Amino acid sequence: MSHTVTAAERDLLGLVAGGLWFAFESLARDAQLATDLRSKTALGAMAVAEYGHYEAVVRRIADTGADPGEVVGAYLPILDRFHRATAPRDLLEGLTKAYLGDALAADYALEIASHASPAVSGFIAGEVVDCGQETFIVPAVRAAVAADPHVGGRLALWGRRLMGEELALAQSLAAQRGDLAELVMGGPDTPGAGLGEYARMLTRMTDTHSARMRRLGLEP
Amino acid sequence: MSHTVTAAERDLLGLVAGGLWFAFESLARDAQLATDLRSKTALGAMAVAEYGHYEAVVRRIADTGADPGEVVGAYLPILDRFHRATAPRDLLEGLTKAYLGDALAADYALEIASHASPAVSGFIAGEVVDCGQETFIVPAVRAAVAADPHVGGRLALWGRRLMGEELALAQSLAAQRGDLAELVMGGPDTPGAGLGEYARMLTRMTDTHSARMRRLGLEP
Repeated sequence: MSHTVTAAERDLLGLVAGGLWFAFESLARDAQLATDLRSKTALGAMAVAEYGHYEAVVRRIADTGADPGEVVGAYLPILDRFHRATAPRDLLEGLTKAYLGDALAADYALEIASHASPAVSGFIAGEVVDCGQETFIVPAVRAAVAADPHVGGRLALWGRRLMGEELALAQSLAAQRGDLAELVMGGPDTPGAGLGEYARMLTRMTDTHSARMRRLGLEP
Repeated sequence: MSHTVTAAERDLLGLVAGGLWFAFESLARDAQLATDLRSKTALGAMAVAEYGHYEAVVRRIADTGADPGEVVGAYLPILDRFHRATAPRDLLEGLTKAYLGDALAADYALEIASHASPAVSGFIAGEVVDCGQETFIVPAVRAAVAADPHVGGRLALWGRRLMGEELALAQSLAAQRGDLAELVMGGPDTPGAGLGEYARMLTRMTDTHSARMRRLGLEP
């Protein structure tokens, strides 16, 4: 990637790096909550993989000539608030959040990236990838839900709440970081898909989130 | 490494893996406490490096034909108690603990490994290495101590307390996991350096710990 990314694309890279950072942090904390060595090792490996993607995006931002501390740092407070508001109370909530939340963050990044240049969107697509969530988390949560129907009910509420908090986050991002929304909708001087596109995007994300909840054995 | 490690050597590998696991966990949590992106990234990279060493030791244990879940898992409760008892209250305590504690854990492993076979002790020496603690932590703590003498006093107390808790941990390990102490001192059927050697070993570790505290600008 050269220095030719737009300011909005650079901001999008900053958001992606911030999201990957919190994926690393959350998986490391989930690894701590796990009690058996196999789960700890698997979650640790996922955290390490997310860190690798985070580092690659930070390097790309530096390649554009910008200061990653500023570009990524601008997103840390809003992402931190989201993650504090959705702090898991136990390992199963942590795993459910890692599966649903990390995938939803990837959906959001890819939706916005689809309005960016092919170079930027291709790069982002290579960094917001599954790091073992599908292989490790889906069977673990499904087994817990199958073993106890109360777990399924509790985690379904949790999954719906996560979606609500993510929608609120997406709205805050659009309000506070206007260039991201403008990348999607277009602005005074930029082409875009129009005012309704951001809302349609969130609807598509809700549908995919529901499908993923079903995959975990949860009623969306 | 072949299947020919002794039971005591396998247990030592289990302890080393357990120690590296908590180094990963602690550095990931320190990265979370850091507020600027440069520190977060540096601490995250150190956590990732420690995880890599942890994984290598777990693989070696599996290579001996043993179940790493049992061998490493046997040490997790006692190490967990130690880390809960020495949970840092802020980033500076976390950094000080990562520098002093990880190095002291390495000293302990290497002291015991010096009584194991050259293959085992050589392998361990390659895994309990500095992962950036010297480059990143020493200047950060020294700068904080130079900027505020109260910080130096508080962290000196913290460093002394860490040493005390580590000595207690070493005594518990010797009591609960007799084969480790036997590797050093010798037992009914095994040669060793005698009863006094474990105590002399702890004295040497205390001296090295004091030198490291001075390196951080702290009065031991």
